This record gives sequence, structure tokens and C-alpha cells, in this order.
Amino acid sequence: MRPFLIAPSILSADFARLGEEVDAVLAAGADVIHFDVMDNHYVPNLTFGPMICKALRKYGVTADIDVHLMVKPVDSLIPDFANAGASIITFHPEATEHVDRSLQLIRSYGCKAGLVFNPATPLTYLDYVMDKLDVIMLMSVNPGFGGQSFIPATMTKLAQVRKLIDDSGYDIRLEVDGGVKEDNIAEIAKAGADMFVAGSAIFGQDNYRAVIERMRLALTGL
Amino acid sequence: MRPFLIAPSILSADFARLGEEVDAVLAAGADVIHFDVMDNHYVPNLTFGPMICKALRKYGVTADIDVHLMVKPVDSLIPDFANAGASIITFHPEATEHVDRSLQLIRSYGCKAGLVFNPATPLTYLDYVMDKLDVIMLMSVNPGFGGQSFIPATMTKLAQVRKLIDDSGYDIRLEVDGGVKEDNIAEIAKAGADMFVAGSAIFGQDNYRAVIERMRLALTGL
Amino acid sequence: MRPFLIAPSILSADFARLGEEVDAVLAAGADVIHFDVMDNHYVPNLTFGPMICKALRKYGVTADIDVHLMVKPVDSLIPDFANAGASIITFHPEATEHVDRSLQLIRSYGCKAGLVFNPATPLTYLDYVMDKLDVIMLMSVNPGFGGQSFIPATMTKLAQVRKLIDDSGYDIRLEVDGGVKEDNIAEIAKAGADMFVAGSAIFGQDNYRAVIERMRLALTGL
Amino acid sequence: MRPFLIAPSILSADFARLGEEVDAVLAAGADVIHFDVMDNHYVPNLTFGPMICKALRKYGVTADIDVHLMVKPVDSLIPDFANAGASIITFHPEATEHVDRSLQLIRSYGCKAGLVFNPATPLTYLDYVMDKLDVIMLMSVNPGFGGQSFIPATMTKLAQVRKLIDDSGYDIRLEVDGGVKEDNIAEIAKAGADMFVAGSAIFGQDNYRAVIERMRLALTGL
Amino acid sequence: MRPFLIAPSILSADFARLGEEVDAVLAAGADVIHFDVMDNHYVPNLTFGPMICKALRKYGVTADIDVHLMVKPVDSLIPDFANAGASIITFHPEATEHVDRSLQLIRSYGCKAGLVFNPATPLTYLDYVMDKLDVIMLMSVNPGFGGQSFIPATMTKLAQVRKLIDDSGYDIRLEVDGGVKEDNIAEIAKAGADMFVAGSAIFGQDNYRAVIERMRLALTGL
Amino acid sequence: MRPFLIAPSILSADFARLGEEVDAVLAAGADVIHFDVMDNHYVPNLTFGPMICKALRKYGVTADIDVHLMVKPVDSLIPDFANAGASIITFHPEATEHVDRSLQLIRSYGCKAGLVFNPATPLTYLDYVMDKLDVIMLMSVNPGFGGQSFIPATMTKLAQVRKLIDDSGYDIRLEVDGGVKEDNIAEIAKAGADMFVAGSAIFGQDNYRAVIERMRLALTGL
Repeated sequence: MRPFLIAPSILSADFARLGEEVDAVLAAGADVIHFDVMDNHYVPNLTFGPMICKALRKYGVTADIDVHLMVKPVDSLIPDFANAGASIITFHPEATEHVDRSLQLIRSYGCKAGLVFNPATPLTYLDYVMDKLDVIMLMSVNPGFGGQSFIPATMTKLAQVRKLIDDSGYDIRLEVDGGVKEDNIAEIAKAGADMFVAGSAIFGQDNYRAVIERMRLALTGL
Repeated sequence: MRPFLIAPSILSADFARLGEEVDAVLAAGADVIHFDVMDNHYVPNLTFGPMICKALRKYGVTADIDVHLMVKPVDSLIPDFANAGASIITFHPEATEHVDRSLQLIRSYGCKAGLVFNPATPLTYLDYVMDKLDVIMLMSVNPGFGGQSFIPATMTKLAQVRKLIDDSGYDIRLEVDGGVKEDNIAEIAKAGADMFVAGSAIFGQDNYRAVIERMRLALTGL
Repeated sequence: MRPFLIAPSILSADFARLGEEVDAVLAAGADVIHFDVMDNHYVPNLTFGPMICKALRKYGVTADIDVHLMVKPVDSLIPDFANAGASIITFHPEATEHVDRSLQLIRSYGCKAGLVFNPATPLTYLDYVMDKLDVIMLMSVNPGFGGQSFIPATMTKLAQVRKLIDDSGYDIRLEVDGGVKEDNIAEIAKAGADMFVAGSAIFGQDNYRAVIERMRLALTGL
Repeated sequence: MRPFLIAPSILSADFARLGEEVDAVLAAGADVIHFDVMDNHYVPNLTFGPMICKALRKYGVTADIDVHLMVKPVDSLIPDFANAGASIITFHPEATEHVDRSLQLIRSYGCKAGLVFNPATPLTYLDYVMDKLDVIMLMSVNPGFGGQSFIPATMTKLAQVRKLIDDSGYDIRLEVDGGVKEDNIAEIAKAGADMFVAGSAIFGQDNYRAVIERMRLALTGL
Repeated sequence: MRPFLIAPSILSADFARLGEEVDAVLAAGADVIHFDVMDNHYVPNLTFGPMICKALRKYGVTADIDVHLMVKPVDSLIPDFANAGASIITFHPEATEHVDRSLQLIRSYGCKAGLVFNPATPLTYLDYVMDKLDVIMLMSVNPGFGGQSFIPATMTKLAQVRKLIDDSGYDIRLEVDGGVKEDNIAEIAKAGADMFVAGSAIFGQDNYRAVIERMRLALTGL
Repeated sequence: MRPFLIAPSILSADFARLGEEVDAVLAAGADVIHFDVMDNHYVPNLTFGPMICKALRKYGVTADIDVHLMVKPVDSLIPDFANAGASIITFHPEATEHVDRSLQLIRSYGCKAGLVFNPATPLTYLDYVMDKLDVIMLMSVNPGFGGQSFIPATMTKLAQVRKLIDDSGYDIRLEVDGGVKEDNIAEIAKAGADMFVAGSAIFGQDNYRAVIERMRLALTGL
């Protein structure tokens, strides 16, 4: 198994000092910067678009940027984010008419491609695209709504996707997003995840390094 | 006539250091901070939402924040921006089914309300709402598209709106957005505008103070 | 000028005893039964469709039924309401791509046709269809939202439409909907209206006859 | 197995005398009142909304009201129906972006929650939400279109859902809607259903009690 | 005034022999080939797209091709038609969020640009774009629906647009589409039109030359 | 197994001489004429609608016409194509709210009905409609986008659908569309397909007969 990746979501960072925040969280041991992109159509909220990605690249961020598109439709934003410096682009299969095509489009720009599954979304969307995926992300809360906790049914789903990935022979990350914290990260990793999005669990703390270290510690030996 | 207001659009600021940028531009003499909110549906671009407004308020910005909604539909974002600290909220009449209601909704949150007119949009949308407006904004470029210059037909339109405002007796700002620069701001003011959005014309310069002072100088005596 | 028409909106009636309610209000002197049809798309509310019209006709109601479509798009419901027994069908010009065609469609079913104007909607939609109209209705509140009062700017608009109708030479009713009550109906009639929708102002009272008589009294001599 | 429930759909009742009709059908032995809510977008028909629910509650109906939302999107109508007195709210998984969230929203209002499956809709939508369901409803005709008969493939599907429910250990009703009549209700129950919607099969008859008794008789001993 | 232009609409041609048909109608004296492009969204019909334009260019047609977009949205088809060989591209102002931008886009491809007005559409959309127009087209029937005749109110509207064009000083064609025939073309020209679309009036006849000559004859001396 | 069918797509034919082209390809041995109908909404391209079908029937084409609807929604075009002479109508299950109903609608017009699966679309849409299908078509490229080659994952999917068909006992064609050529047709047939769409592979060649004969030769003995 590959090393675990911790991906802080900047949704919980201080946007008045975003460059500093990203520097700080990377210096504290984060592996990847996670973007929650919402368009007020696919989800009832508007967050931010490609300009933030471009700003961070210009500022000097060289870490991987992992863009989660909670938008509908998705195709027009793929080139925009790729050109703005995205490393990974993931989207929801219900949000495009042409899943295979959107995955191909992402890779055609040299980015890694992934699908994201809402809590209730069935895994059948994976049936014919495993060869086109670099990431599968499971939502463990409903995207775009506040104040939710980790949905337990995610555990079973993680185990199912882990098996699908292992059986496929492809090199695919299994990412999880929603309610991941120090005290459940080990259990989530045991269920099969190897990439963890955390927002307020990291940016909501005083000491980013301390919390990331406790997360890594919890993951040790898995 | 009321004092002219200069409203730099943060669309052209450095988003990695947004707090500093806003501090700097206000210290340099800007009156109002302008937000270009795009949802990738009303315009082909996604910029940013209420969280940026909230971040600036938390950072300590006390100047007026002037939110231009280039989104469709508009009603759900009005409470979100009002609660995030917006001072003025404007929207496009074509982007809502219920113009009068959306204007009332903005004022019900204690914000100032305005309508924005695309370059080709007729002024007939003003016929029955002058009593509900604090701002009328004319687009002098097409919103959401890059690399455009000031559309000349805006001059006539500015003069027409100036007359409508003066005849109405209401206290309504006449704002203009798109291609406003040091060398045309006086002419635009003469046509009737008293509030000026400028993006790269300010944030694209090394010395914000210098450019804002040159703009004010150009406006002197009008 | 033609006799004034009072059109109680069943939106405020008791839907558990709708037949009785309609009988009662007609016996109390109402001229026309008004339907507020909302589809939760054009307005944020879902009320009722053609089946209610059909039920009232089967129940024995012979008075004119005046159907106000707050739906988008409109064309598919026109035949449905016409076949269900509607007498008049009105719609909002913003809610169809083809205003002239929708008006023709209504008349092709033998119904009277009309356009409805939201408080902020300009009258320019009337420019080329006066010959196809039997009714023009002005909204004096925003349709589909609760707890509103009569919007004063309606008065000017009523006068403008009255002049347009009189100048046209066509036999067109001028209907007003929203916040019409005993104490403002005379003033509204003076502004030019000759058909009045009233919901809770009638159905919210104990004695329908008394309130309708007071309305008629207020209209006497105009 | 729990007692069978018979749920007459008021779509076939006389809407001029709805209170009486509902009283009569409940007195005749019906268990639940079924609402077919159509918005002319998810299905090509407009029926009725929350106001009818509110009217029946005010009239004195205390039986459970089972609201089948044939609308898209669904979230805004959930609070409206819950506040109007609904007991059960079901919706189609294709009609919302966020199935898990919509189910949670229904329960947050104290209502029972369910998913409805169109004749061709696969059961994969059940994979991760069995713990959030109180009802699963299978459509045995296509919703929103008239003049159809019971689709035979429903039988297999009923048996599959019955097994899923039994295996899950959750207390979930299996409801069926479309073409249920005295002469097929026993067979449908044998396939696994325990809650039956019937419209014209009940309201289209002279004697509601007689038909409900014949239905119960057919179900005896299953 | 410039020479009158006759623009047969290929909608009424024989599509099994389209090249021949176009050759024949041009040989018979037609000036321009007119395309009625419908997408089954802006109008309830699907006709044809850019591939037909490309096929005619490849076949050898060198006459101007006048593309009337009855589609929504319009921007993506503009480059497609321009690259396929279109000479003129017109669209409906209600079908795009950004009228000025769409006009600019057409001209940026070297095509002539125009706006089309439905029978009920007000002329206010012309207020600020006269400098960006090469054509104004008035629909004298409702686009996308069959079996209609020339709408009389078009006459007044033609006269109004003729005056607007003459007053503007710009070189703008005034085209009319719908129910134009030999016996009304002179009257339509007198009202101000100088470009005439005709479908079945030409392609529905045995002798294209004869009908075009009779049309020209009717126009002689105007 | 039934005889293999070769279905040239006219998308690659010369539309200036469509009648001749279709005659030629049928004389060259083609079995069925394939229509790629795109509406610029379900796919980013606009091709052609029912009028082309009607034109070919009027021209004298008697071969089966196989209409692939890449449109959304689908129901309104079904009667239009059926009345224009279509023999087979297929659509994408994601493009309609009511799959079962749309299939029934096609058959109600006497046409054969089918579902089309995008490369990533799961086969679960087949679970309850095998009795209503005459054709299942697998897309082996993403519909509506140019310059693609045959997607390898189609082979597994073909084998799965072949088994579903054989197990069902129904007489259902298994059609494949996208990148089918002389050099892979045999392999595709071995995977289970018995009907083959080919566009440029046939119409892009000088000698239609030669290429169709080589295809048939490749299929011999399978």
C-alpha cells in the first residue's frame, strides 16, 4: 500500500491570508492541498474557482492541488482548473452527461482524474472506467451542507471500493472526505482509505503540525 | 452631486494575500471594495462566494463591500452575502423571475440594493422600481469575459440613467464597471457616473495610491 | 366602461369544502372565480392544477373561471386548463419563449387570453399584442410569496395601461391582483382597474356577502 | 409481517368535497391518505401542493398522510409538506442531487422518509441508505401519465426489495402504486408488498367500504 | 435604399437533393440561402446544424448563407457555423444572457451579425446595439410552429425598425421571415423590409424562377 | 444467431446529395440506415432532425431507418420521428425521467425501441425493461465528440449484454456504435454484437461496396 496522504481543505482556512495558511499547513506536514469548488447549482453554496488555484501557484505553492468539483456541468471548468495549475481533478458522475469523456478530458491536460461518490450514490458508475481513474473519492457527508458528521455507511462502501481497486490492478487512490478527524482516521484507513481530506479538523486548530502529527501517529502501523 | 466613489474590484488582486491587498488599496484611498461574484452559469466563469466576504470582515475590513452578483438565480445568495457582511448587493434583472421581490429581499437584510445592466440590456427594467434602488450599475464591458475594452454606447446610456435618477428625486448611485481607467474616468463621470469599478487599472499597477490619486485628480472640478 | 368584476381567489378558500366555498362566494355576489396556479418553478410554491378546475365544473360551477398561470413553461398547461373548463387563461410574458403563440393557443381553445405583469416588469411586452388580449393583469404584490402589501408603484402603472387600452380601441379587461381590499379598491379602480382579485380579503372574512357588498359600494359612482 | 395498509390516493377523489371524501374513505376502512404531488416538471402534469395537506389537517383529518413527491428538485417542498401536516414523504432518487441529504431532511422534521422507484429505475439507489428509510415504494405504472395498467415486471422487483428489507433488519414498509385492484392485490402482497395505493379502484366505486373490504378479504391469510 | 434580397429558406427544399435544390434556386434568381436552425429547446422542433452548411460549401455553393439560430443558448453554435461557412448569423435576444457579447462574437469570425425579433418581442433590445448590427430580422409568424400566416402587427413594427435604421445612419438590412408571398411582398417592402425569407412560397412551387421573377416584379419601382 | 446487420451512419455522408448517398450505400450492401440525431444539449453538437427522415422516405428509401436520439428530453421527438418514417428509435436512459414510458411510447407508434449506453453508463438500467427492448446499443466512443477511437472496455460490456440477452430469451439486437472498422469488426462480433454502425469507415471510402464486402468477409463464419 502506498503512503497515506493528508489533504487539508482550504475551505476552512483563513482566506484573507491564504498563501500563509497554505504554507503553514504544508510546513506542518500536509501532503496535498484540497479545493472544495461549489457553484451554487450542484450544491447550495458558492465557494471559489480557478483564480484561487492560479493565485496559489503564483504565490509559490508547489504541492499537489486536488480539485473537487461540486459543479454541474463539469466540462468547461476542467481546462480552466488544469490551466490554473490543478494536479488532480475529481467530479461527480451525476454531474456530467459523459463520464468517460470528462475523465479523458482531465487526463488530456496532464492532470490526474477521479470520480466522487455522494453518500447514497451507487458504485455502478465504476463498472467501465477503472482504467481511467487515478482517484476514487467517497463523500462521508453530503457535500455543500454544513454541520454534518461522518456517515457510518461509508465504512462498508470504503471496503467495497478497496476491493474493487485491488482487484483491478490499477494504481488508484481511495480518498475520503467529510468528518475525518484524529479519532476516526485510523478506523477509516483500516476500511481501505489512503487519502484523507480534513477541513476544520486541521484549519480549525491552533497548531496544524500537532494535529497532523497525531493523525499520522494514528495511521502508524496500518 | 455626491462625492465620487472609487471601488477597486478584488478580481484583479492577489488572492494569496487578500487581506493585505484590501488593506493596501483602502490605505491608498479606495472608498469601497468591489466583489465580482460569478457562478459559471450566468457567466462562463466561477470566481468566489460569500466566504471571501466573511473572511475580509473577520480580518478587520470595515469599508463598504459592494457585491455584484453575476449569478442565476439570485435569491439564495442574497441572505448568504448579507450575513457574510455585504454592504451593497446588486444583480442583473434577467437573472431573477421576481426583480421587485429580490430588491426587497436585499433591503430586508439592511443592505443597499441595486440593478446591473448588461451593455445591451434596455433600461425598461427601471420603470417601476426606482423607489427600491440605492445603486444602478451599467456594465461597460460584457461581464464574465476577459480582454474587453470600454463599450462606447455606455456614454449615452449613462446620460439617460443620470437623467432618470435626477428626475426621480431618489438618492441613487450610478456605478460603472468595465474598462474604467485613468484616461477615461473624467469623461465617464461627465456622462453621469459617480461610482467607478476598476480592477486591473488599480491592482495591476505597482503603486495603488498613485493611480487612485490620478483618478481623483481627473475627477476634480467635475 | 364595463361593470366592475370581483374575482375571489380560491387560494384563501377552505379546500376541504371547495365546492361549498365557491357556491357561497358566488351567492355572495362574486363575478368570477380566480385560480392561482403555481408550479414551484416560476414561483417558490406549488398550489394546484387543472384537476381542481375540472372538479368545480363537475360540481356544477358555471361562473367564469379565471386561471392565472404562475408556471414556466406555459404551453403544455394551456390545453389542460382549457379542457378542464377554464374561461380565461393568463400567463407571464417572461415565462414563455413565444408570447404571441401562447396567446393564440389560448384563444384557439375558445378561452379569453391575457398577460400578467410582475411589479417590476416593463409594459413593452404589450407593444405588438394588444389585438390578441382580452385581459391585462397587473400584480400589485410579488406572486408566490406570502405576507405582502399593495405596491404603490402599481397606481402609475394602472393608469398607463388604462390609457393603452383606451387608445387601442380593444375590449380588454384591466385586472389587478395583490393586496386589494375594501379600503383601497376605490382608489385602484380610479387608477384604471375594472377587475379585482381578492383572496383573504374575502375568504378570510366571516361574511362573504358583506365584504363584497362593501367593495361594490366603494366602487359605486366611479 | 406488519398489518397491510390500504392507502387511497385522493387524485381520484372529488376535489369539490375533499373533506367529506377523505372522511368517507377513512370511515370505510382506509388506513392512510395518499397524496400524488406533481409539478409539471418531473412529470407532465400539475396536481396539488402543501395547501391541500394543511386544509385536510384543519378540517380534522388525523390519519397518516403519505405524500409522494413527483417533483424536481425536491428539497424545498419537504419543509413545506412537513409543516402542512404530512406524516410520510417519499421522493424519486433521480429527482435530487443529494439523496442521503433529502432523506435526512425529511426525518429532521419528524416525518417518515421513503424512496420511490420508477418502473425502470434500478435498485442500486438502495445500496447505502437502508438505515434512513421508512418506506420503499415501487411504481407499477409510469407516474404522471394516464390510462396505464400494472406492469408485470414489478412482481420480480417486489420480491427483490422484500428480500433486501428482510435481510436489512430495518422496519421498512414496501408500498406499491399503480394499477392495484381487488383482483391483483393478493398476488402483489404475495410478491412482498405490505402497503397499497389505490386511486380509481376505490374512489371510482360507489361503495368505498365494499371495495376496501373485498381488498382486505383478498389479503386475509397471507 | 439597397437592392432587395430574396432569401429562400431551405427548410422547404428537398433534403434528399439539397445541392441541386440550392443550385436551382440560385440559378432562378435567389440572392441568399436562408437556414432555419432549430434545436428542440428554443423552439419545439429540431431541424439541422452546421454540417449542412459545410456540405453546401463543399458542394460548391458560393452565395451568402444566412443562418437564423432558433436555439438557446447561442454562443457555442456561432463558431461552429462560422467555421462551416456561414455569411450571416442571427439570433434571438431572449436566447442569450449576453446579447452584446454574442454579436461581437459573430463579427469576430468575420460574419455579419443580426438580431431576430419574435412577433411579441419589444424593440427595446435594439437600444444600445445598433452599431453592432448588420441585420435586423422581424418574425412575422411564431418560429418553430407550422401552418401560420403573416401576422398583421408586423407592418407597424417594420415601419418602426425602418425608422430606427434610417435614423441610426448604419448600414443594416431589415429582413422579414414568415408568410411572405408574391401577393404581400410589395406591401411588406413598402413597410420597410429589404430582405425577404420565403420557404414554401418558393420551394413549394414547380418553377422557382417564375415565382422569384413575380416577386421581383412586385418589388419593382418601390 | 441472426444475420449481422451493417448500419452506415449518414453523419459521414455527403448531405448535398443525401438521396444518392443512401441509394449508393444500400446498393453496396448496407442493411440499415443509421441516424445520429444531436440537439446541442445532450451532446455539444447539432446535427439533424425528423425532416431528413421524411425527405429520405419521400425520395424512396425503403430500408430500415435506425434513429439514435442524442437529445434530452426525448419524448417529444419520438412521435415526430415515428411519423417521419423511422423504423427503430433508441435513446439514452439518462436523457429521460421515465425510461419505461419512453420505450412504450416508441412501440405505441409501431417502431422498434432501444436503449443506448454511454461508455461509462452501467447496465443496471436494463434490470426491468428487457421485455420492452428490440435493440440495445453500446457506445464504443463518447457520442457527440469528434476524433475518438474504439474504447477497449466495450468488449467486456458487449459480452455482458450478450449474456443478458441470451438469458432473457427476448429477440434483441446488440448494436455497437463508435470506431467500428474492417479490422476490428470481427473481434467486436465475437464479443457479442450483431449490428454495426459505421460512419467514416464506410462513407469516407471511395468504394462503399468494397468496404462493406470486406466487413462481411471478416464476419463470415462467426
